[in-house]
Amino acid sequence: MENRPTLQDIRDAHERIRGLVHRTPVLTSTAINDMCEGQLFFKCENFQKAGAFKIRGACHAVYSLSEQEARKGVATHSSGNHAAALALAARWRGIPAYVVMPENAPFIKKAAVANYGGEIFLCKPTLEAREYTLTRVVESTGAAFIHPYNDHRVIAGQGTAALELCEEIPRLDLVIAPVGGGGLLSGTAIAVTSVSPDTAVIGAEPEEADDAFRSLQKGEIVPSENPETIADGLRTSLGSLTFPIIQRHVKEIITVSEEAIVQAMRHIWERMKIVVEPSAAVPLAAVLSGGRDLKGMRIGIILSGGNVDLGHLPWR
Amino acid sequence: MENRPTLQDIRDAHERIRGLVHRTPVLTSTAINDMCEGQLFFKCENFQKAGAFKIRGACHAVYSLSEQEARKGVATHSSGNHAAALALAARWRGIPAYVVMPENAPFIKKAAVANYGGEIFLCKPTLEAREYTLTRVVESTGAAFIHPYNDHRVIAGQGTAALELCEEIPRLDLVIAPVGGGGLLSGTAIAVTSVSPDTAVIGAEPEEADDAFRSLQKGEIVPSENPETIADGLRTSLGSLTFPIIQRHVKEIITVSEEAIVQAMRHIWERMKIVVEPSAAVPLAAVLSGGRDLKGMRIGIILSGGNVDLGHLPWR
Repeated sequence: MENRPTLQDIRDAHERIRGLVHRTPVLTSTAINDMCEGQLFFKCENFQKAGAFKIRGACHAVYSLSEQEARKGVATHSSGNHAAALALAARWRGIPAYVVMPENAPFIKKAAVANYGGEIFLCKPTLEAREYTLTRVVESTGAAFIHPYNDHRVIAGQGTAALELCEEIPRLDLVIAPVGGGGLLSGTAIAVTSVSPDTAVIGAEPEEADDAFRSLQKGEIVPSENPETIADGLRTSLGSLTFPIIQRHVKEIITVSEEAIVQAMRHIWERMKIVVEPSAAVPLAAVLSGGRDLKGMRIGIILSGGNVDLGHLPWR
Repeated sequence: MENRPTLQDIRDAHERIRGLVHRTPVLTSTAINDMCEGQLFFKCENFQKAGAFKIRGACHAVYSLSEQEARKGVATHSSGNHAAALALAARWRGIPAYVVMPENAPFIKKAAVANYGGEIFLCKPTLEAREYTLTRVVESTGAAFIHPYNDHRVIAGQGTAALELCEEIPRLDLVIAPVGGGGLLSGTAIAVTSVSPDTAVIGAEPEEADDAFRSLQKGEIVPSENPETIADGLRTSLGSLTFPIIQRHVKEIITVSEEAIVQAMRHIWERMKIVVEPSAAVPLAAVLSGGRDLKGMRIGIILSGGNVDLGHLPWR
């Protein structure tokens, strides 16, 4: 198995996307530190362009294309943050973005893609319909397919958030990232364990979509089937590229209940006065759920994004 | 009329509270700039200790007391952010804080005061009951009364936010602060017009609590009577100390509808991914309400606070 991406790939990605994406701030909260008796450092990707870390991977992939490849545009399937991120990155490069989305995707997600100039192809909400539609789009346009997470360029891009975190906050005992398809977690794991070998990397996952937990236990990919979790960014399952990286570099997957996610999300909003989406609250939920002695530890948390429908909040 | 506080008073206040309160960040948003065709710089007092700018004035007042005065503690009446801020500042100095609150104050506000160690005295929700209770508390304890806004020490403290803003962002055309009792606006006006004479200061106020607007028009204080506005921090009316400062240094008061406040608040949450309270959204509402040509202007906005009941948001 080839060992890609490497730390150098992540550094290259960082160089490539610098000036396009934000170097997001790292925030701390005395109130939350007191709650968990540790020192938490939150890497705020909710402040990132297009509202989530996804722009890092999408932007790196888009700018990795040759002039000739790029001219034909990029395509993807996604009902979430990757779709909007890819549309925005494509607009920056001045190329078309074709996005296959299920008809039942939330209006707000479609609007975000359209707002960044992406061309949307609606399909029935089944795996078959999605793949059929994507194949047709790619065939008719010649666009480069950019997978939401199972792509080395994307993984390297996502790893740049943790790279910045480790540069800014040395001597972390632990870094926790949420895990859905594993793009963020695998990029984070490579970055962190390479630049700071004494720092452990942990993935945090909803109990209701615990495919990473089960896949690591079983030693092979065990996909979640139609998982129902409020953490809408984490409903996807590990891919063939992300699984082995996580297997190799991630110490543990902690699963958390829906209630713990909502509570952690509310703590972040109330104490830190920032808007994060449910998926972003999963690592703090893992810290607060207990069961592990994290007392006094320096813990980096990737707050993955802030795209949430303010008209439908989970706490009333 | 004595010209107090002066810029030097504000600088002294800044020196005194440094290291106790946060130097809050100034954030910008491309999306919001595009909406108003100006360049907005948001001074984020929602990230301040105790969640609002109020800690600046309260802390300055508490640390201005002599050892002998301080020993007897501080007292105030407030159902809002000043109450919690004073309790926190008193705790830092290790002295008691006595807070008179109406019995019908929201639970969340009482909890904040109690959480910081303040002693709460409940009274009937009338002006008479409040003053009677406060007088008795002050008489029996010998505590120093710290008014929420009609106090030179408090005004000087509140002015430190704008001082930091002007240091960090030079050549602003305009600074807009919300106005309730006028502590923040008068401190802001002194700071801004002193360090940057070419910068105009504007107050922003709910139409439903437009006492500052009417007071400036009439040339004397015209209090609002039981105003009903979602901007709960702005229901109070100008005081004898804040009115003349505002009369002298503030160019204009812009009033905005309740709908405009809610819309501006939602824009800030959605685009900037930060939690602000309704009062903090009033200046952006003034910018977006139009009627004035702000195109291309560099505008400083004081985001006054972020204390909001997440269980009762105004948009559904």
